[in-house]
Amino acid sequence: MSSSSGSDPRLYLALVHYPVKDRAGATVTTSVTNLDVHDIARSARTFGVRRYYVVTPIELQHTLVRRILDHWTTGSGRKRMPERWEALSVVDPVVSLEDAIADVTQREGERPRLLVTAARAPEGRPVRTVAEARGWLAERAHPYMLILGTGHGLAESLLASADHQLEPLDSGTGYNHLSVRAAAAIYLDRLLGR
Amino acid sequence: MSSSSGSDPRLYLALVHYPVKDRAGATVTTSVTNLDVHDIARSARTFGVRRYYVVTPIELQHTLVRRILDHWTTGSGRKRMPERWEALSVVDPVVSLEDAIADVTQREGERPRLLVTAARAPEGRPVRTVAEARGWLAERAHPYMLILGTGHGLAESLLASADHQLEPLDSGTGYNHLSVRAAAAIYLDRLLGR
Repeated sequence: MSSSSGSDPRLYLALVHYPVKDRAGATVTTSVTNLDVHDIARSARTFGVRRYYVVTPIELQHTLVRRILDHWTTGSGRKRMPERWEALSVVDPVVSLEDAIADVTQREGERPRLLVTAARAPEGRPVRTVAEARGWLAERAHPYMLILGTGHGLAESLLASADHQLEPLDSGTGYNHLSVRAAAAIYLDRLLGR
Repeated sequence: MSSSSGSDPRLYLALVHYPVKDRAGATVTTSVTNLDVHDIARSARTFGVRRYYVVTPIELQHTLVRRILDHWTTGSGRKRMPERWEALSVVDPVVSLEDAIADVTQREGERPRLLVTAARAPEGRPVRTVAEARGWLAERAHPYMLILGTGHGLAESLLASADHQLEPLDSGTGYNHLSVRAAAAIYLDRLLGR
């Protein structure tokens, strides 16, 4: 399948387990969880995301992800729940964000523009609205990668080096502690939903 | 706190574990999961939902929910992650949807209008758009309860007896198998998000 054909959005998703922040702001590697793989794959497939990269440098966790994928894409799971196979078929475990970017570049013939997310707006750097990013995706002129962090969010170095930081999902209540699964669902809906 | 004061939305949320459908359409009771309690509480609190009812007739599962709540609202968890306590403080385990409705009625002085959700539009019954429901909530004239099903969705009897069924979360891809956690996040964002 040539990914540059068709009218599906040119959007890729990356869930980053390193480099992310812990509660104190230190850079750490978090563990991959089964439910992050499943939930976000289902949301990604529902909204037409092309690939969902699970980014972790820990090779043993790639084995975990591949075991989940094998169960649902070739094992008894596929027969029992074919729609779950369809969701998980968009998942790729990769060692680094650079590897995810390289894969998209190969598929699209062009390096994706990186859209990073955080629960708080940065100081001293502009954010782009989700409506702007929705417009870029509708134009289909370039591929994009939406990047979400686990733990307490993406490391500052990664936020600062991206092409654009999206505005936080402000709810107006002053409380913003969504799970990464909920944040992924809402960003995808705002970017691609009807 | 009087819940009829203030400008927060008059919206309640119920996650139903009975009566729901299994894959074959039979009415079953599903198990409460730790993550449904956490994730949906965080989304509910983020968007200003007044109470989040976890509905199950299985008393043993109330013990499970209360153990989660106790850990995070009075135990070491509260000290370590106060924002999690704030989210979980909106959670109430109840035996039946009727009990949830009775609780809202007592708080609001008025029975809530029931908004049910499903992944597919019903045959022979109208659905209301989320935009309409957003308008009702903005008016603040009446309390509402958004009802989400676990398993393969709310039982037909429950769908048919509600005040309004909301349109499915159509993504335009023809694939719609969101997790209930993702669906809750997206419905709340569409109903109450900025």
